[in-house]
Amino acid sequence: MAKEIKTIGVLTSGGDAPGMNAAIRAVVREAIVKGLKVKGIKRGYAGLLQEEIVDMEAKDVSDIIERGGTILQTARCMEFTTPEGQQKGAEICKKHGIDGIIVIGGDGSFKGAQKLAALGINTIGLPGTIDLDIACTEYTIGFDTAVNTAMEAIDKVRDTSTSHERCSIIEVMGRGAGYIALWCGIANGAEDILLPEKYDYDEQKLVNNIIEKRKHGKKHHIIVNAEGIGHSASMAKRIEAATGIETRATILGHMQRGGSPTAKDRVYASTMGALAVDLLCEGKTNRVVGYRHGAFVDFDIDEALAMKKEIPEYEYQIAKNLSI
Amino acid sequence: MAKEIKTIGVLTSGGDAPGMNAAIRAVVREAIVKGLKVKGIKRGYAGLLQEEIVDMEAKDVSDIIERGGTILQTARCMEFTTPEGQQKGAEICKKHGIDGIIVIGGDGSFKGAQKLAALGINTIGLPGTIDLDIACTEYTIGFDTAVNTAMEAIDKVRDTSTSHERCSIIEVMGRGAGYIALWCGIANGAEDILLPEKYDYDEQKLVNNIIEKRKHGKKHHIIVNAEGIGHSASMAKRIEAATGIETRATILGHMQRGGSPTAKDRVYASTMGALAVDLLCEGKTNRVVGYRHGAFVDFDIDEALAMKKEIPEYEYQIAKNLSI
Amino acid sequence: MAKEIKTIGVLTSGGDAPGMNAAIRAVVREAIVKGLKVKGIKRGYAGLLQEEIVDMEAKDVSDIIERGGTILQTARCMEFTTPEGQQKGAEICKKHGIDGIIVIGGDGSFKGAQKLAALGINTIGLPGTIDLDIACTEYTIGFDTAVNTAMEAIDKVRDTSTSHERCSIIEVMGRGAGYIALWCGIANGAEDILLPEKYDYDEQKLVNNIIEKRKHGKKHHIIVNAEGIGHSASMAKRIEAATGIETRATILGHMQRGGSPTAKDRVYASTMGALAVDLLCEGKTNRVVGYRHGAFVDFDIDEALAMKKEIPEYEYQIAKNLSI
Amino acid sequence: MAKEIKTIGVLTSGGDAPGMNAAIRAVVREAIVKGLKVKGIKRGYAGLLQEEIVDMEAKDVSDIIERGGTILQTARCMEFTTPEGQQKGAEICKKHGIDGIIVIGGDGSFKGAQKLAALGINTIGLPGTIDLDIACTEYTIGFDTAVNTAMEAIDKVRDTSTSHERCSIIEVMGRGAGYIALWCGIANGAEDILLPEKYDYDEQKLVNNIIEKRKHGKKHHIIVNAEGIGHSASMAKRIEAATGIETRATILGHMQRGGSPTAKDRVYASTMGALAVDLLCEGKTNRVVGYRHGAFVDFDIDEALAMKKEIPEYEYQIAKNLSI
Repeated sequence: MAKEIKTIGVLTSGGDAPGMNAAIRAVVREAIVKGLKVKGIKRGYAGLLQEEIVDMEAKDVSDIIERGGTILQTARCMEFTTPEGQQKGAEICKKHGIDGIIVIGGDGSFKGAQKLAALGINTIGLPGTIDLDIACTEYTIGFDTAVNTAMEAIDKVRDTSTSHERCSIIEVMGRGAGYIALWCGIANGAEDILLPEKYDYDEQKLVNNIIEKRKHGKKHHIIVNAEGIGHSASMAKRIEAATGIETRATILGHMQRGGSPTAKDRVYASTMGALAVDLLCEGKTNRVVGYRHGAFVDFDIDEALAMKKEIPEYEYQIAKNLSI
Repeated sequence: MAKEIKTIGVLTSGGDAPGMNAAIRAVVREAIVKGLKVKGIKRGYAGLLQEEIVDMEAKDVSDIIERGGTILQTARCMEFTTPEGQQKGAEICKKHGIDGIIVIGGDGSFKGAQKLAALGINTIGLPGTIDLDIACTEYTIGFDTAVNTAMEAIDKVRDTSTSHERCSIIEVMGRGAGYIALWCGIANGAEDILLPEKYDYDEQKLVNNIIEKRKHGKKHHIIVNAEGIGHSASMAKRIEAATGIETRATILGHMQRGGSPTAKDRVYASTMGALAVDLLCEGKTNRVVGYRHGAFVDFDIDEALAMKKEIPEYEYQIAKNLSI
Repeated sequence: MAKEIKTIGVLTSGGDAPGMNAAIRAVVREAIVKGLKVKGIKRGYAGLLQEEIVDMEAKDVSDIIERGGTILQTARCMEFTTPEGQQKGAEICKKHGIDGIIVIGGDGSFKGAQKLAALGINTIGLPGTIDLDIACTEYTIGFDTAVNTAMEAIDKVRDTSTSHERCSIIEVMGRGAGYIALWCGIANGAEDILLPEKYDYDEQKLVNNIIEKRKHGKKHHIIVNAEGIGHSASMAKRIEAATGIETRATILGHMQRGGSPTAKDRVYASTMGALAVDLLCEGKTNRVVGYRHGAFVDFDIDEALAMKKEIPEYEYQIAKNLSI
Repeated sequence: MAKEIKTIGVLTSGGDAPGMNAAIRAVVREAIVKGLKVKGIKRGYAGLLQEEIVDMEAKDVSDIIERGGTILQTARCMEFTTPEGQQKGAEICKKHGIDGIIVIGGDGSFKGAQKLAALGINTIGLPGTIDLDIACTEYTIGFDTAVNTAMEAIDKVRDTSTSHERCSIIEVMGRGAGYIALWCGIANGAEDILLPEKYDYDEQKLVNNIIEKRKHGKKHHIIVNAEGIGHSASMAKRIEAATGIETRATILGHMQRGGSPTAKDRVYASTMGALAVDLLCEGKTNRVVGYRHGAFVDFDIDEALAMKKEIPEYEYQIAKNLSI
């Protein structure tokens, strides 16, 4: 029979993402509405092991839905990757009366949640990463905000590229995944998009394309380059040498992780946060929440971690077609 | 056998929406890539009847993906609601060699497209409205931008409401539909949301809720009111009289229709625009493009117009739970 | 000899304005650096009379420079307009050891500061109002943010006005003063600007201008109307009737009071806040800080309240010239 | 006696800056109102020498006031730095009937204007640069927008720095000048500001300050570094090694040059553009327009180029005081 849940914990882990605060707020308030107590665990698994655990009331999450970052903060934790660390974490949960725990983070964070589940702490994972690189879900908390932040920055770069008739390489985040780059590529009308998932990167082709489009009267040439390919600065130098066209690189960097979340990130993170609490109330454990085929759903964490995800071919193709 | 398409037309109809320009750009460029000619029809069906028709090249849609409004403009047209007007429209299409036409607009605009289809002009509809009130699709061009615009405005109203410990009613667009109001309600953490689809509007309950939350220490009380309910100014006066709490109404108005589109609106509108061209190339007609269950799909217009759509219950419920 | 200042109080009064938090932060931190104690007085003079007074440390003003509103809140207070109320206020200051007080607000708030000064509490006023209607200064805290907020909203209205070939009247704040309207009029390239300070408002001329510009091919007609003139909704109806051109009114409302302050508001409010502390340290009282002729200066409050301010003629004239 | 001006030219030169389009629009429309003809010269002095000269009407500058970049584009031109190039430029002006020319750019561009003035073409310079490094004026076109763009990006970096308890170095533009860095330093509440004008840069002091503030509970440490100091990436590595605190560098780059101009940049650039035309009509030449001591004024170019400008001491000091 399912364990009755009276007190839950919530933590954010891995890289922070806009919308994590909206999710925390939803967890806290939905839990209170459902008659549960909530404890906030600071600084991810590191804070769990150091017992940085605080009671959370409805008013503790007032005026945070619109704020970037995570009020619970986040940190990496080597100790928690060891069986001893995991055992210690589960014991600390029990000591504080935490029956269930909601972990907001990426695949790495879910692996920790799996271990806690195996040790008797009910766990639900929420996909929180700007990179969209979680296979079981079409949505991750923070992606929409990060894409809009990058897109707005690239709009600005485009203005000055046009004034100076420059080629501009803009490197966006995403670690090994090209989703932010693909979305910005389409949204900014980029002349070229470089994704780690696509093995057709060929600098000579790129150079030819720049020269070709310049001949046809394009006043700028915007290349959106994914972090997973990187090396934007040296690429800019080689392109300038090969084309004779002034070329500049910009690496947008950590600004993509912050900022007030978009409506989508606030609404979806809120819904996922509430749903995670409801799943704990139903006695579920070792699950991760996703958004798939138009609905919020949940998967076994083991199953979720085994899934694969690919860059959508149609969107990648039209990105090319529309850049003429 | 399917008619071969050589030349297509594109028009925007009904209220404008951010992302329409991204869709127009995608139509023009995808068509050129596919070897078609494109003609832009100005001012919707009105411009069709007045033969305001211009050739469009790839460069005519440069630097518009990031712009609000519609470069083709839009207008209402009574004449086109008559059989004579529709007949005239179809003849003008033929005169200009237009084999297929892409209509970006709402349900009303699709009814016009249906008539043209019946008269032998292949037609594809794209859902373009900030109101999200098209039943066959979970996404409409402009909704995401409009929600973010309204949300950012409400964030600002909230600042000053907190400073003055006020109650604020903010009326958002949506005509008969409450989707913008629901999304803002969640995204802004509103204390109350009033939707035309929900018949539980009871001003005494609202007044009690305001008094109750003030007692519990809330420094502001934000009510997001849908256009379909309206009457925000008189509501504010009655609430102030009943609660003794200073209450102000703001009607956000037409700013919600403009502005540079969000990443989602740019990417989805671009994809839909390209897809509409591809559907015409496949010989399809009398179809409307939608986004449903995580994929871009198309429906027969008759079927699409017969569908029904409802406010999602779970989201509506958690909006209430999270406002404690 | 000047009284030695050991403890200061700070309050915000009148309508809130973005940048007030930056000023509060500067007051608190500059005071601590100068060895003073700081007390925050909540809800303006109302909170003073109710002794809502809290100690403030450097960390109490962390992460507020970027936030709209005022963390000290604000309220109107009839009692403080009476000699008895003022006497009570001065006594409460003395009881709490407050030797000097910094009042952030408009002319009305400065009158209160004058009275406290006369009763032996050293006072410095900082100009905090979005309306720019303080004669002794070319800058007031919040004006720059409010103008940018209004301007961005009007940019959006313009998009949709162009799509629909509409006339749009947008009413901006400013109470009796037309500065926000003048700035938006220039910044948005408005076709007409209506200011309370200019007695040339003539609706027939306006109608003629609209018709004339439409003939010359203008696709929209933007009228920025000041709150001090108002009546935008009825004006829209009359203009539509007289011109036959669809005309809509938008009253931007309280969103203009909120939002994260602009760089100018943060930098100038910070400088003024620090300067106010330094003036108290120098033993000054009954002064108001202004920005004039390119420098931060201070005036006797009596003198400041007697000054007059006018709409700059050259800017008003070029607003007209550039709208052709 | 002053030469009568019938036709004027306008060009943008050097790095582009938001607000240049507002200035161009003002030049064109004020000139038309004053009965002059206007010619747009593309790509700065380079375009002048290549006779890229087009007639400009009022409608050619419609809908550009809100756009970043410069519709006239800009380029560097070595040839125009030679007496032969300057002679050729003056002759081309005469050939096209250009009696006066308005040059929007920085000190380098004004030197070109000086030469044209000496060769009989009346010239007026407008200060257009995001760097604020023009001594004769307190305002340059583009500075306000660039500062706000950088500030908003740094706000976002701060969110994620707080979540991860990081030190972040953000490098902002400004070439040899530290004005953008100083303004952002104050506006973002940076813990440290590094300016090329201040010779007190001492990395050990910086490291000590970081460690000290961390001990006092600061969750992030933001260092705004000016382009004129640079080397942010290597600095980050050394600081991380010395403090043991994770440290990341972001170089904001060219996004600071683009984007829709702020209200101040639109209003001041419009006023300066109109004033430049009025000065030409008065027969003035070899002048540069500035904003000083609260008024728009003009200086002899020789005199303007000889002036010196310094970082304001009071603001620099309070930036330090307020970072406690």
